[in-house]
Amino acid sequence: MEGYWLFLALLGSALLLGFLSVLFALVWVLHYREGLAWNGGAAEFNWHPVLIITGFVFVQGIAIIVYRLPWTWKCSKLLMKLIHAGLNTIALILAIIALVAAFDFHNHKAIPNMYSLHSWIGLTAVILFALQLVLGFAVFLLPFAPVSLRATVLPIHVFSGLVLFGTVIATALMGLTEKLIFALSPGNYSRLPEEGAFVNTLGMLIVVFGGVILWMATRPHWKRPLEQSTKSRQRNGGMLDGNEEGSTMTDGSNTDKSDVEFNSEASARKRSPKLDEAGQRSTM
Amino acid sequence: MEGYWLFLALLGSALLLGFLSVLFALVWVLHYREGLAWNGGAAEFNWHPVLIITGFVFVQGIAIIVYRLPWTWKCSKLLMKLIHAGLNTIALILAIIALVAAFDFHNHKAIPNMYSLHSWIGLTAVILFALQLVLGFAVFLLPFAPVSLRATVLPIHVFSGLVLFGTVIATALMGLTEKLIFALSPGNYSRLPEEGAFVNTLGMLIVVFGGVILWMATRPHWKRPLEQSTKSRQRNGGMLDGNEEGSTMTDGSNTDKSDVEFNSEASARKRSPKLDEAGQRSTM
Repeated sequence: MEGYWLFLALLGSALLLGFLSVLFALVWVLHYREGLAWNGGAAEFNWHPVLIITGFVFVQGIAIIVYRLPWTWKCSKLLMKLIHAGLNTIALILAIIALVAAFDFHNHKAIPNMYSLHSWIGLTAVILFALQLVLGFAVFLLPFAPVSLRATVLPIHVFSGLVLFGTVIATALMGLTEKLIFALSPGNYSRLPEEGAFVNTLGMLIVVFGGVILWMATRPHWKRPLEQSTKSRQRNGGMLDGNEEGSTMTDGSNTDKSDVEFNSEASARKRSPKLDEAGQRSTM
Repeated sequence: MEGYWLFLALLGSALLLGFLSVLFALVWVLHYREGLAWNGGAAEFNWHPVLIITGFVFVQGIAIIVYRLPWTWKCSKLLMKLIHAGLNTIALILAIIALVAAFDFHNHKAIPNMYSLHSWIGLTAVILFALQLVLGFAVFLLPFAPVSLRATVLPIHVFSGLVLFGTVIATALMGLTEKLIFALSPGNYSRLPEEGAFVNTLGMLIVVFGGVILWMATRPHWKRPLEQSTKSRQRNGGMLDGNEEGSTMTDGSNTDKSDVEFNSEASARKRSPKLDEAGQRSTM
């Protein structure tokens, strides 16, 4: 793998930033706020930032780069797809519980729901993320979709995934802003108390985490090699799993593809360079 | 150009969304707020959202996709670089004036500066954007940088540009959230008055604008063809302008490159496939 040590350093940074973000969220609600509970009060609302940052930011971020881990390249592509889909399912479940916590808190306190820009964009993101997951499952995991459909959907899947990830981070930043203004006594945020600086730092950590994930996800030379995955498909009985090579995302084509033609998918690619291009180069 | 009509439709949508965003910002401050003035009061602050949305969102977005306009492919690459850099310079100038408006308003009203997450991320984005502009000018516009340096810097330039664009949009959304909470009388935002819904809609417009720009910018088949720009360089006397082909961004290699070798840059690329790959496929 080209640039292996840089990859390792960035992966370590991403994990550190992700863990730190979750830790900061926990310290925020446990030390500065009312803790965690499920009682309709502020402590129930506190599950909202904790679960969003854990699931919808950190777990989703890892799900995005899971194909890039070189140690997984000997695993079958199907296994990696299951891990990718599984992590994203965990992210969605945590996001939904986070939404329930916020709605439940609002309802107990007679605070209206869905009035803020944060809620408009956030709910849209959760719905689109669920749609993305269902479509991804139907097209890339179930064995029914023809290669041409996979080739058409893949660039959209990859682009949507990255933009949704960015949108989730933007929504989280809006949420932190809202909560700080509401929670700190009127005007107190502007005096930048310790809690304000702490949560601002949490926001910065999330942004840098997002940047590192997007960088790792869009480097072509860190892409899972086609050759190896095709060989593993051959070992798995020539299972047709589409143009999934680009299914995290990439900006370049794969240099190892010219000498592989093991199954009908590879043949279809060879016959149709357009399909190949769509599958290989589909993405951000 | 493959998918010409889709490109046209998306370009039309981007322009419409961008104009609508600027229009919404103007209607917001002129109809719902205190108008525009430079008097240290709220009307001076109002320049902040108007100039950020006009310059740092709309103009920057257009600067990103300017290489993709097929009508410009007959223009020299140098001209397109000057337009790209010029638009980004306009974006930066408007952003700086927007910052001055916010700081000046705060100082007149004895409101502290730089306490919010919005201000932390926003100022960081402006500084990094300025750095990006200076580095881009030095490496891609001035004739001194060797091809290898350009090839190294290009993927970073493109990635940083797109991530900064996304960060600016996220910061704008935080700013809209803050302003709505501060400006609407306490608790009134939660009753979602007309102004709240109007500005939420503005936020949604900005997000969709960003999505359309990023999609157009990352489609490989809408990339400025290498062959034509190389020919135009030849007409311009073989000016060395580096691996600028990917300098908006792309996820794929260019299919037209195999038969071009007009100048030292093309020769260098041919001798060094790595350089070529870095230049051509550098990007998101």
